[in-house]
Amino acid sequence: MSEEKRNQATSILQELGIDAWLLLGRETEQLCDPSLPLLLETHVTWPSAFILTARGERIAIVGRYDVENVRAAGGWPEVIGYDQSLRPPLRDVLARLNPAQLAINYSTGDPAADGLTHGLWLWLRDALAGTPFTKRLVSGESVVAALRGRKTASEVGAIRRAIATTETILRAIGGYLQAGRSGLQVREFAHREIARRGLTTAWRAAMCPIVTIGPDAPIGHVPAGPRAIRRGELVHVDFGVRQDGFCSDLQRTWYLRRPGERKAPDEVRRAFEAVLAALRAGAEALRPGVVGWQVDAAARQAITRAGYPEYQHAMGHHLGRSTHDGATLLGPRWERYGRTPYGLVEAGNVFTLELGVQVAGYGFIGLEEDVLVTATGCEYLSTPQTEIWYA
Amino acid sequence: MSEEKRNQATSILQELGIDAWLLLGRETEQLCDPSLPLLLETHVTWPSAFILTARGERIAIVGRYDVENVRAAGGWPEVIGYDQSLRPPLRDVLARLNPAQLAINYSTGDPAADGLTHGLWLWLRDALAGTPFTKRLVSGESVVAALRGRKTASEVGAIRRAIATTETILRAIGGYLQAGRSGLQVREFAHREIARRGLTTAWRAAMCPIVTIGPDAPIGHVPAGPRAIRRGELVHVDFGVRQDGFCSDLQRTWYLRRPGERKAPDEVRRAFEAVLAALRAGAEALRPGVVGWQVDAAARQAITRAGYPEYQHAMGHHLGRSTHDGATLLGPRWERYGRTPYGLVEAGNVFTLELGVQVAGYGFIGLEEDVLVTATGCEYLSTPQTEIWYA
Repeated sequence: MSEEKRNQATSILQELGIDAWLLLGRETEQLCDPSLPLLLETHVTWPSAFILTARGERIAIVGRYDVENVRAAGGWPEVIGYDQSLRPPLRDVLARLNPAQLAINYSTGDPAADGLTHGLWLWLRDALAGTPFTKRLVSGESVVAALRGRKTASEVGAIRRAIATTETILRAIGGYLQAGRSGLQVREFAHREIARRGLTTAWRAAMCPIVTIGPDAPIGHVPAGPRAIRRGELVHVDFGVRQDGFCSDLQRTWYLRRPGERKAPDEVRRAFEAVLAALRAGAEALRPGVVGWQVDAAARQAITRAGYPEYQHAMGHHLGRSTHDGATLLGPRWERYGRTPYGLVEAGNVFTLELGVQVAGYGFIGLEEDVLVTATGCEYLSTPQTEIWYA
Repeated sequence: MSEEKRNQATSILQELGIDAWLLLGRETEQLCDPSLPLLLETHVTWPSAFILTARGERIAIVGRYDVENVRAAGGWPEVIGYDQSLRPPLRDVLARLNPAQLAINYSTGDPAADGLTHGLWLWLRDALAGTPFTKRLVSGESVVAALRGRKTASEVGAIRRAIATTETILRAIGGYLQAGRSGLQVREFAHREIARRGLTTAWRAAMCPIVTIGPDAPIGHVPAGPRAIRRGELVHVDFGVRQDGFCSDLQRTWYLRRPGERKAPDEVRRAFEAVLAALRAGAEALRPGVVGWQVDAAARQAITRAGYPEYQHAMGHHLGRSTHDGATLLGPRWERYGRTPYGLVEAGNVFTLELGVQVAGYGFIGLEEDVLVTATGCEYLSTPQTEIWYA
């Protein structure tokens, strides 16, 4: 899969008219540029430079004791070792390549494209002093956005597998839910299901799944708690697994009927329909060429027109190696999201679509689906929840 | 343990005369300032600021949906939530605290102190525009070095436990080594020993343990290979586990005797003695107040005076939450190490001491011990290997 991404990077550099892309790293097990694992299947210890060019060159400059490591990982035909300083071989390689633009990974708005630390940026500025390259540095955020965002067929396959597993576990969670069981118990149940498959949670285990029970639970990134489920309440689960290096991210909502109750109360079902309709409005707006905030606006307008308050988050995010996979956000144009809601949606992108509303006296209704952007619209990768589930 | 470190941070700020320390982060599951896990026992999604002051204040400013998450993690008495932008609450808090110096985490030389990305640094410069704080920003590397470097009693306890487990597994590896078994088999054996204890490797599993077999193996950060052990060869293992969040890092060397051979050949035993003596020379030089490179120089001089070539790496590094735990390096004054060999050794530091030599025709002899710096010298946390082991 890394070979696919390295080849894709070359095409993207050609398309964007950027001659070369430079990734820097050191002690990458401690802190790693999120782009590096797409291109290199190992870690490095000493200050290291990885250069890809639009002509297809791939040059790694690493400390002596990382040379065999990087060669064994494969995909970098030229591996240059050094003993005392990265500076001279980096200057030599750049002089040889003479790129007119040299992309480096910084971004104020996209965390996934902001893998260069400030200290390494200072080091680079100093290392290149007196060369023309200090003036040729550009942000690599467009390269990163395209490379992370345009999933290859094998990446989409891995995401599909993670989603299928998650749906199986969500069905099992549905069977486990009953009055008297707590959010902590539901979380432990999910963790056992994950562990016996040899997998891990898509995000931090303490909050994966998030289990929101009843009308008084705080909403958001909240760890599961000891509060037990009662009849006549909503249970909302936000959950994903990491499988073969890729994540899923789904939300499902159940209602626990009271004795004698056949259906959820009207206001619960009305709210569910409104959430479902808003999510579908977002999905219908999602196609190549639209801008992230337009998709969010379609869903946001649908939910507010139905008489419910706006959700205080983005309607969707990229999904891939990370649950929040960077770049274009299907979100409102709020300062905290920087430029990410202004990104273009492209074919091959995988997004989550998610939103919810609080129903007074019952709890939170939230839905989240995972979709692939196609040439003309989007395809659901998950099997959407289309009615309230009963447990 | 985080509460200990938060309190220690306050003392260190007082001692260094730094009014406040600002840590920034977002999507910290994807990329996290290595200092943040010392102070916060969770992750955050949106742009977040964590401020500790010499007066003992601790203020977290996080996105709305992370407020409950950070409150539940504990240790941050003031948690401020925001919806649209981190900028106004950050400016407000700084105006209230009015610090004369504001430390932020960048460092050209110390990866562990270089947790601020360049994009977030640009964001911060812009967010503070027009305030006096842009001119009060200083590097937090001295704060990070002291906080990571001065291990508390419970941190040392955790490291001791990781070392004890590693020594048990190394003894088991010694029992497993025999002619015909490959480096890959040794690695798999070690991984089974780790897995059945519910632990993980101290560094990337593909290279933990590193298993160096015979005279022709490449040295360094090299994944184990299919080459089988033969009699009359050296086997070198570099190995550590992560237990309760802390790492060990040890190297041991075995010789496989030929039929009828009672001892390793003279040149192998002479080389072992030289490595052991050089390692001890480093240990004798290690005490509070010396500078990192002086410890390395003692060992380097010992090995070269014994007629062996210099090792092409540092003699030791901090050990803790990461195998390479940042800050002061017991290493030579080479450009690739930046300023880290110039750091002061302090009581409470935990270092590795490691070096090795190649013995032509037999293989690599390497030793690595883990030591705690005391008031007057150092104490071995590991049980040192003092003679060649036979397998």
